[in-house]
Amino acid sequence: MTTPPVSFSLGMIGLGTMGRNLLLNLADHEFAVAGYDKDAEKIRLLAEEGVGKPVLGFTDIAAFVQSLHTPRSIMLLVPAGKIVDNVIEELLPLLTPGDIIIDGGNSYFTDTNRRDAALAAAGFHFFGMGISGGEEGARFGPSMMPGGDKQAYAVVQPLFEAIAARADDGAPCVTYIGPGAAGHFVKMVHNGIEYGLMQLIAETYELMKRGLGLDNAAIGRVFAQWNSGRLQSFLLDITKDIFTFRAPNTDHLLLDDIKDEARSKGTGKWTSQVAMDLEVPLPTVDTAVTMRNLSKAKALREQLATLYGPAPAPLVVDAEAFLASLEEAFFFNTVITYAQGMQLLAQASVEFSYDLQLAEIAKIWRGGCIIRSAFLNDIFNAYQQAPGLAHLLLDARVREQVSQAVPGARTVVAAAVSAGLAAPAYAASLSYFDALRSARMPSNLIQAQRDYFGAHTYELIGHEGVFHSQWTPLHEDAANKSTTQAGPAAASEQPVIPNK
Amino acid sequence: MTTPPVSFSLGMIGLGTMGRNLLLNLADHEFAVAGYDKDAEKIRLLAEEGVGKPVLGFTDIAAFVQSLHTPRSIMLLVPAGKIVDNVIEELLPLLTPGDIIIDGGNSYFTDTNRRDAALAAAGFHFFGMGISGGEEGARFGPSMMPGGDKQAYAVVQPLFEAIAARADDGAPCVTYIGPGAAGHFVKMVHNGIEYGLMQLIAETYELMKRGLGLDNAAIGRVFAQWNSGRLQSFLLDITKDIFTFRAPNTDHLLLDDIKDEARSKGTGKWTSQVAMDLEVPLPTVDTAVTMRNLSKAKALREQLATLYGPAPAPLVVDAEAFLASLEEAFFFNTVITYAQGMQLLAQASVEFSYDLQLAEIAKIWRGGCIIRSAFLNDIFNAYQQAPGLAHLLLDARVREQVSQAVPGARTVVAAAVSAGLAAPAYAASLSYFDALRSARMPSNLIQAQRDYFGAHTYELIGHEGVFHSQWTPLHEDAANKSTTQAGPAAASEQPVIPNK
Repeated sequence: MTTPPVSFSLGMIGLGTMGRNLLLNLADHEFAVAGYDKDAEKIRLLAEEGVGKPVLGFTDIAAFVQSLHTPRSIMLLVPAGKIVDNVIEELLPLLTPGDIIIDGGNSYFTDTNRRDAALAAAGFHFFGMGISGGEEGARFGPSMMPGGDKQAYAVVQPLFEAIAARADDGAPCVTYIGPGAAGHFVKMVHNGIEYGLMQLIAETYELMKRGLGLDNAAIGRVFAQWNSGRLQSFLLDITKDIFTFRAPNTDHLLLDDIKDEARSKGTGKWTSQVAMDLEVPLPTVDTAVTMRNLSKAKALREQLATLYGPAPAPLVVDAEAFLASLEEAFFFNTVITYAQGMQLLAQASVEFSYDLQLAEIAKIWRGGCIIRSAFLNDIFNAYQQAPGLAHLLLDARVREQVSQAVPGARTVVAAAVSAGLAAPAYAASLSYFDALRSARMPSNLIQAQRDYFGAHTYELIGHEGVFHSQWTPLHEDAANKSTTQAGPAAASEQPVIPNK
Repeated sequence: MTTPPVSFSLGMIGLGTMGRNLLLNLADHEFAVAGYDKDAEKIRLLAEEGVGKPVLGFTDIAAFVQSLHTPRSIMLLVPAGKIVDNVIEELLPLLTPGDIIIDGGNSYFTDTNRRDAALAAAGFHFFGMGISGGEEGARFGPSMMPGGDKQAYAVVQPLFEAIAARADDGAPCVTYIGPGAAGHFVKMVHNGIEYGLMQLIAETYELMKRGLGLDNAAIGRVFAQWNSGRLQSFLLDITKDIFTFRAPNTDHLLLDDIKDEARSKGTGKWTSQVAMDLEVPLPTVDTAVTMRNLSKAKALREQLATLYGPAPAPLVVDAEAFLASLEEAFFFNTVITYAQGMQLLAQASVEFSYDLQLAEIAKIWRGGCIIRSAFLNDIFNAYQQAPGLAHLLLDARVREQVSQAVPGARTVVAAAVSAGLAAPAYAASLSYFDALRSARMPSNLIQAQRDYFGAHTYELIGHEGVFHSQWTPLHEDAANKSTTQAGPAAASEQPVIPNK
């Protein structure tokens, strides 16, 4: 652009690829926008990529702030952590109460809580907004999860709705998520689900490659085929592409050259850790986090492979029939992974008073984001029909599909276990299901043990209160002269708030 | 006692059962000791239980402190959290630099770090000491894990060694663990292992009860039989007792009346969360934590049991042969659970400079504590012979036993999966093993996906550096006109320090 407008609709701090792409996306939708970065090279890139668009870059933060109309909407796309605090600190003296600051990074939700409280006290609106879709999503349509002051949201809503991805039905993939850190929390759980789904795809690759002995072309065809059916998803879509992507100047797949040590940036781990704090079972995500960590122990794995030998044998199965079971198993596991994530959202909504609308969240995940998939329509429908649904598996349509897929899941896990192939996320999802549909679990024994060695008390079926028994002295005939002192125990067990 | 001595060897703050029992234990070993509690009733109980022993209770903290010889050794046995800080704050003005404060509770290790630093700055010695063994252990011989200033340890060492449990070979179950919070960290991991082992026993109960249809008497006999062999352990010992313990005035087991909702106090969860921070795979402990949480969803479980039906069928196996496999599987899982805990200790030792002696830790766990077992002798031997052992599974003797037990573990998990019985910890341990002895994992696909959607870069086999490819535009024939830009990426991926 040649003539700056009097005032810009939104300012972006941090003009890395994500920040630049979001600005260009806004400019494409005819919002005049400004960007700030200390790095002049990034300003140059913005100008180059934004030729003819209403976008202008600044290296002077004061001039940048002054160029925005009030109340100002300023988004930060800088690395999570201390840098966010530093930028806010630098920014505050230049702002006017009522201005809106939006943290578009993957900040940890408790950091967002802290910033929200501090900024609210100073008269500013703060939004923690999860953005999913990577660079391409930012440029052409991300899924966005803004959390913060609901009234202030009205100011930025038109901009976000204009640039958001659209689901197949045309709905924009952005909605007000909830107060405080709700947006960052939901984005964190999105990433946790992403970890789970990626681990499932990796295990599926392993089962086809080492279990069935399929070559890359055949594996890619299976993923492509799945991606055209009920399993359609962004992650399968890129996976099928990866299975056609040659290493430069070679005739083999780049995939085969990539090290089998998975990295992570922490959002999956956070999801698992928070789920444990909120006492929500998330075993598939936990397993995904664990397996990334395990993969890094390459030298140890090589030693143990030598000592214990590789998997005993390929799968002794009919390949065609097994692939049909594998599709069912993958579908089953996909449902379980999303279901775990939704449970965590439901519990967080109670715990943190987020008032999350699970149907709306499923809805905005249907486009633009990494975990978008055909199945999100079923999740949307389930929570749309029953907003207080206690678990996704209770939905009639989901139940029908899951019941039909369970036998395949069993076949796959049993075969993998027998053959010595690691399919930990497949196994964890199935165990989760089998435990969850157990009206009676063996956990009474754990309670008895805890009371035995630690006097932690137990509860009785059909009785109020907690109880303690004197389980010792212990000899074989103690049973007939029991000294149990059942009855409300003096010290009832209180929930323990961890002091970490 | 009638005449207080001029000075007591140790003072205890907090005269609940644990505190009183430890004092009485010290008094039994002819150490003159003092106790302090605000609650006069606890002083009365101490006097009653301590008749004829060199022990005296105080309700006046100043008088209590003055009764101790210097440098004073004062142990706190109060609930973890804020109360520990409050007690220290109350205590400090009454102390003399050089005095030793010992926190004997289950404090979170970062709290211990903080207190250690603050007290060291004020001229005091601080010990975080894990104590295991419950009330009976405290009274007659616990396993103790003291961490703190090594020189100060010499003051309290004779007391601790006198009252500690003894292993079968007579060695006292206490040793200096390491600086700072090393003692509390090791105790936390002890508890994580405890969670894992308890979950395995619960699943074993489930497999025998619902899988084989054994009655309680038969199940108890299996546990008793195991407990007389290589599986001998405190937890199996109390489990066999639980299977003979009648509900008062009835002819059935109390166990059958106990609710199947497992509680927890947080140490298992902490272990899993810290393991994720340190990137150490701990799937069996994670699963134990998760299953306690899952068990609490009783109403949901009952709903899902109705909707999806119970486990499809009992195990179709020869009971005798299956029990033999189950013993192997249980042994295998026991090894894996301990091995995961030892890995976490090894990594923490590096990360926090604890200089942990894994052999010594295995040694002091052989008596007094909840996870004592025959197998700890093998762990002790493994690390005694090779202090830098990279994994317990690398030890020749362990390898021999594990290799022999793997087939049984496979049989059990495959049977449970096929029958629809939840055996999540069994399954997780086996997956862990199968992944860990995979020289090549499918994690290269995860790296390709991460680079595809997030430009997170990947590493190549046989090449230094990180790389990025432009995976899009993506169409079926992209393979032949690849635009990969392999070569060191501009932005190398840095490890991310989570800002939580």
